[in-house]
Amino acid sequence: MTKIPVAILGATGAVGQRFVQLLEAHPWFEVTALTGSDRTVGQQYGDGCRWVLAEPMPDYARGMLVLPTEPGFEARLAFSALPAEAARAVEPALAAAGYAVSSNASAFRMAPDVPLIIPEVNPDHTGLIAHQRAARGWPGFILTNPNCTSTGLTIALKALQPAFGLRRAMVVSLQALSGAGYPGVASLDILDNVVPYIPGEEEKIEQEPRKMLGTLHAGAVRPAPVVFSAHTNRVAVSDGHMVCASVEFERAAGPKEVAECLAGFEAPEMVRTLPSAPRQVIEVRSEPDRPQPRKDRLAGAGMTTVVGRVRTDPLFHVKFVVLSHNTVHGAAGGSLLNGELLVAQGLVQ
Amino acid sequence: MTKIPVAILGATGAVGQRFVQLLEAHPWFEVTALTGSDRTVGQQYGDGCRWVLAEPMPDYARGMLVLPTEPGFEARLAFSALPAEAARAVEPALAAAGYAVSSNASAFRMAPDVPLIIPEVNPDHTGLIAHQRAARGWPGFILTNPNCTSTGLTIALKALQPAFGLRRAMVVSLQALSGAGYPGVASLDILDNVVPYIPGEEEKIEQEPRKMLGTLHAGAVRPAPVVFSAHTNRVAVSDGHMVCASVEFERAAGPKEVAECLAGFEAPEMVRTLPSAPRQVIEVRSEPDRPQPRKDRLAGAGMTTVVGRVRTDPLFHVKFVVLSHNTVHGAAGGSLLNGELLVAQGLVQ
Amino acid sequence: MTKIPVAILGATGAVGQRFVQLLEAHPWFEVTALTGSDRTVGQQYGDGCRWVLAEPMPDYARGMLVLPTEPGFEARLAFSALPAEAARAVEPALAAAGYAVSSNASAFRMAPDVPLIIPEVNPDHTGLIAHQRAARGWPGFILTNPNCTSTGLTIALKALQPAFGLRRAMVVSLQALSGAGYPGVASLDILDNVVPYIPGEEEKIEQEPRKMLGTLHAGAVRPAPVVFSAHTNRVAVSDGHMVCASVEFERAAGPKEVAECLAGFEAPEMVRTLPSAPRQVIEVRSEPDRPQPRKDRLAGAGMTTVVGRVRTDPLFHVKFVVLSHNTVHGAAGGSLLNGELLVAQGLVQ
Amino acid sequence: MTKIPVAILGATGAVGQRFVQLLEAHPWFEVTALTGSDRTVGQQYGDGCRWVLAEPMPDYARGMLVLPTEPGFEARLAFSALPAEAARAVEPALAAAGYAVSSNASAFRMAPDVPLIIPEVNPDHTGLIAHQRAARGWPGFILTNPNCTSTGLTIALKALQPAFGLRRAMVVSLQALSGAGYPGVASLDILDNVVPYIPGEEEKIEQEPRKMLGTLHAGAVRPAPVVFSAHTNRVAVSDGHMVCASVEFERAAGPKEVAECLAGFEAPEMVRTLPSAPRQVIEVRSEPDRPQPRKDRLAGAGMTTVVGRVRTDPLFHVKFVVLSHNTVHGAAGGSLLNGELLVAQGLVQ
Repeated sequence: MTKIPVAILGATGAVGQRFVQLLEAHPWFEVTALTGSDRTVGQQYGDGCRWVLAEPMPDYARGMLVLPTEPGFEARLAFSALPAEAARAVEPALAAAGYAVSSNASAFRMAPDVPLIIPEVNPDHTGLIAHQRAARGWPGFILTNPNCTSTGLTIALKALQPAFGLRRAMVVSLQALSGAGYPGVASLDILDNVVPYIPGEEEKIEQEPRKMLGTLHAGAVRPAPVVFSAHTNRVAVSDGHMVCASVEFERAAGPKEVAECLAGFEAPEMVRTLPSAPRQVIEVRSEPDRPQPRKDRLAGAGMTTVVGRVRTDPLFHVKFVVLSHNTVHGAAGGSLLNGELLVAQGLVQ
Repeated sequence: MTKIPVAILGATGAVGQRFVQLLEAHPWFEVTALTGSDRTVGQQYGDGCRWVLAEPMPDYARGMLVLPTEPGFEARLAFSALPAEAARAVEPALAAAGYAVSSNASAFRMAPDVPLIIPEVNPDHTGLIAHQRAARGWPGFILTNPNCTSTGLTIALKALQPAFGLRRAMVVSLQALSGAGYPGVASLDILDNVVPYIPGEEEKIEQEPRKMLGTLHAGAVRPAPVVFSAHTNRVAVSDGHMVCASVEFERAAGPKEVAECLAGFEAPEMVRTLPSAPRQVIEVRSEPDRPQPRKDRLAGAGMTTVVGRVRTDPLFHVKFVVLSHNTVHGAAGGSLLNGELLVAQGLVQ
Repeated sequence: MTKIPVAILGATGAVGQRFVQLLEAHPWFEVTALTGSDRTVGQQYGDGCRWVLAEPMPDYARGMLVLPTEPGFEARLAFSALPAEAARAVEPALAAAGYAVSSNASAFRMAPDVPLIIPEVNPDHTGLIAHQRAARGWPGFILTNPNCTSTGLTIALKALQPAFGLRRAMVVSLQALSGAGYPGVASLDILDNVVPYIPGEEEKIEQEPRKMLGTLHAGAVRPAPVVFSAHTNRVAVSDGHMVCASVEFERAAGPKEVAECLAGFEAPEMVRTLPSAPRQVIEVRSEPDRPQPRKDRLAGAGMTTVVGRVRTDPLFHVKFVVLSHNTVHGAAGGSLLNGELLVAQGLVQ
Repeated sequence: MTKIPVAILGATGAVGQRFVQLLEAHPWFEVTALTGSDRTVGQQYGDGCRWVLAEPMPDYARGMLVLPTEPGFEARLAFSALPAEAARAVEPALAAAGYAVSSNASAFRMAPDVPLIIPEVNPDHTGLIAHQRAARGWPGFILTNPNCTSTGLTIALKALQPAFGLRRAMVVSLQALSGAGYPGVASLDILDNVVPYIPGEEEKIEQEPRKMLGTLHAGAVRPAPVVFSAHTNRVAVSDGHMVCASVEFERAAGPKEVAECLAGFEAPEMVRTLPSAPRQVIEVRSEPDRPQPRKDRLAGAGMTTVVGRVRTDPLFHVKFVVLSHNTVHGAAGGSLLNGELLVAQGLVQ
């Protein structure tokens, strides 16, 4: 089988680097283009990129020339690790030029005709793509994955939605430094410290899961009726976003049945066989002190959502802790899985 | 004025050290006894104690002999930094021997005849002491201060209770390492990590504020009818407990009036003049990213509660962030302030 | 080929866990016994062990019963992650009972008849084993690997020894927390801090490399005539020991030839084909700010020594920085490689 | 006594903030001007400055307007916290305009006619000022303090120089994040990591102490004949630079006499009475594991140099560890002490 040529947009940033790492030796995709900012265009990737991952830079990328982020590169599918403003400017141009864009950027997530997808949650929302193409007259299209903190939370809630219904969720995040990119958070701001604020983050967490947990109907997504309140915090952790969640259901439920429901959750059959899909979507830990970022973020190579501390909530029904790798499933890995879904559904060939 | 001789029980632990530091050059108290465990009894404090504070060990303590934690030392007031089990065994014996015990331990906090006091919140609850003495036949008595995380939270809620009434509060803590004592949390457990569990902590936070916010009536405290749900987390911070709180009131209220109410809160007049009382009980920050442990824990020398990010909550009425120095106001400083209150009220002379 | 049954002694500690991880799916060895302390004996490994690695616990170990650390378990080769005192007591008993013991413990490293081995450096020193067996009357034997900090340093010096001769080396280490085991260093001792002291460490670094760089002659090792001075520091790093080294040679040499010599170093041919041997023994980095623990410790899966900043020293000849993964090549991985060497040499069958 | 009006140049940076903090309630100086970069000029200091110190921002500074860094502000003495390039451009202009500039910048430290001063070490080197003024035709002048890492090291060596003579010193630093300013080191570069490189730092440490330990003769400083080799590392510490030093003397000396010599060191009499001078210039610790940054950096309010682990060196004569607060004595505090020296010597009135 000939591999599908893919590009990574914004390949020198923290999320871009994770794409570079995850796409090494991918069974379906071959990286044919890396794009960067003016500062790095024309350099070899190994020279222009300040690599921040603990895993070494893959050899295949080292000698590739960094291209400008604009139509012209050779690829059918473009994974976008662009910042929001850059994405807003360039992703429509790429879709108009015929590229399929699987974007990690926030720019178009809430646009009514742009699918916001976690394959384990709402793979059918790719149905929006036909409407998007028709409305905008694009040969290509844009599809997005959610904010890194929304990812694990939405997967956990999706597991519970059919059985219990979702009414309200209070969620407090403890988020990793890599979520802020590089250079991102200054060390003097986080050593021996916590920062209880991440610009724009609480709004995203309060909106994005509603879209993904909603239903596609007549070319539009009707959001789920659940209401969220979010507090977001930055902590001195390299990778792995943790969320403390208290949830109120439509129908009363206790910790035991909730834990069973989480542990038994499976992705739709088409999704299970995607190369980057985790064997286990949700791992439920029974120890009193898990999940923990450093010990659980690599579960399922960073694609498994880990839930623990499922217990009764004195105000709502249950409370629990969710951990998800923010730059793997929460960013590059999630976007990659979306790209694989597009192939499986025949939307990228 | 002759200073009142005081003892520090469990003086070699992390909280004990903070007592030692705060009592240096105290205007009312003079440290006449330091007690420790079997390992350290008989040694000079400077030798037996592994000092963990960033501030240097005060000279006065260096040469003092560590005494056993049992009746016999010369002091009228004993500040207790004992672990819960040790406190359960020895504090009643000390009260029976005539000592006034101002305890930071959790052992007797919820006992019906033991006052649980934050002077800025409920100084009148010392009225329980007469009942305690009568019921137990003790010439001395035990008075307690709350759990370190409850302290700042309860102060903030007390400021709001008269104006708005308190119905429900969802609270998620990010707690400092010093709260676990020494050696406490292993470095391999917290570097690049968060631990979403602190044994027994959530139960304390869900119960203690209700007692302090309650009313003393006919020799008993009737708890406030507010209901709490708590999540507790350990983070890589040396000092300073942070709490993300969402609060539902009896009467609807918005961020502006809540912030004004917090900023305007004053302790009862008798409390304001105590040597360790902060000039400002609550400092309200208006920056989007404050309070932060490293930058705000020293407000009012660790005795001021700092609140910020007061904003509308989509589920309850408002949400905000509370920071309090866990070993100062949340432990040794709170207990010391309680001791000063006892002097001001004539209960220790 | 039938795999050789091996045991891990002290399998629940930090180094023991690394053995458990590295031996998952090993081509030559199969773990047939895990031993632990009284606290854990009789429990399933998954229950008795507080796993501290970032990598998940391998499934094969989870259900194994923890055995006492004494003769009787079924294995031909025992990898020892025991503390020094325990090793001193039990390793001779095991050798006397016929086991081959590949020990990471310091207890017997400097014993004249016990080989202290890094396969890339001195594989011929296993020649001591015959003398050891004869002198002690053991059917089994003990072989050791060096202190974690000595490992990378000795490999780098071995690369330079033939060409330039070694006269003096000043070495200052910045060592990771995992080197102290678990619970090891208290978080309050290392957050926002450095501890400039590790008990017994400087002596080991000043002695062990001399033995390994020495020559085996007539059944005894004659130490290399190089003299070391060591300063050791503990820093807030999870894994990866860094050493700043200044070296004076017998024959003057500059940074360029030293860097080439390091980069060109190869292990003896028999060693290169061992399953755990790194493809590249030493990786020389040319960036000004490498190696770094978090970014380079996984080079060669933790078995490659990374050297950088090779430059002229105003006092000696050159100075450079050496990084080695302290629990992989510096402990469990080094000991495992020694076990493989024993198989290749026919000393374990 | 009327206070002397002083300015702080570059007041919004990390070192500038430390000047602001140290000059609160100074007995001799009153801050009359704060200067900043284009970004902050015209704003109130409390708004334009992102405060990074753990100590709260002093009230006096909050409402002051940030001025441009150029002649025109009202002050007789200007403390400079400027970056090197800015200092190179503007400090001569200020000296030409009549200001006395006490600079923490590296720009002119090694200029032959600019004194490089630690008052405890070489207060007589201010004798260069007359030559500087004559040669350059300036009514004002520039005086500098050394690099933060050189400070403590030079003080320790000065204590030993008269008794033993200095021949060679091998020094390896573990430096705090605040030394890199703000935002400085990215958190992703230092969490769970060490960076073995600080641009330009090793050269400074190898040169600056030689000038300060030298002798002023006929209007020029003859450097001391000691030779240094330095390795510098950045570690995850907020404040406090640590140096591991091995020293070879002209005359053999052992740890006992060296420790006594360090502990007995006194500043020249005129220096001892300066407001910011530490009561004790060097504190010698006898514990095996001190000094440590977090526990010892506040010794003498950050102005005392703490030395420990004095022991025999197998290659040179002795080795020891030096700790100095890098933004207090190593930067703003050292510069402030220099300003006080100028007043005591009548060079600023």
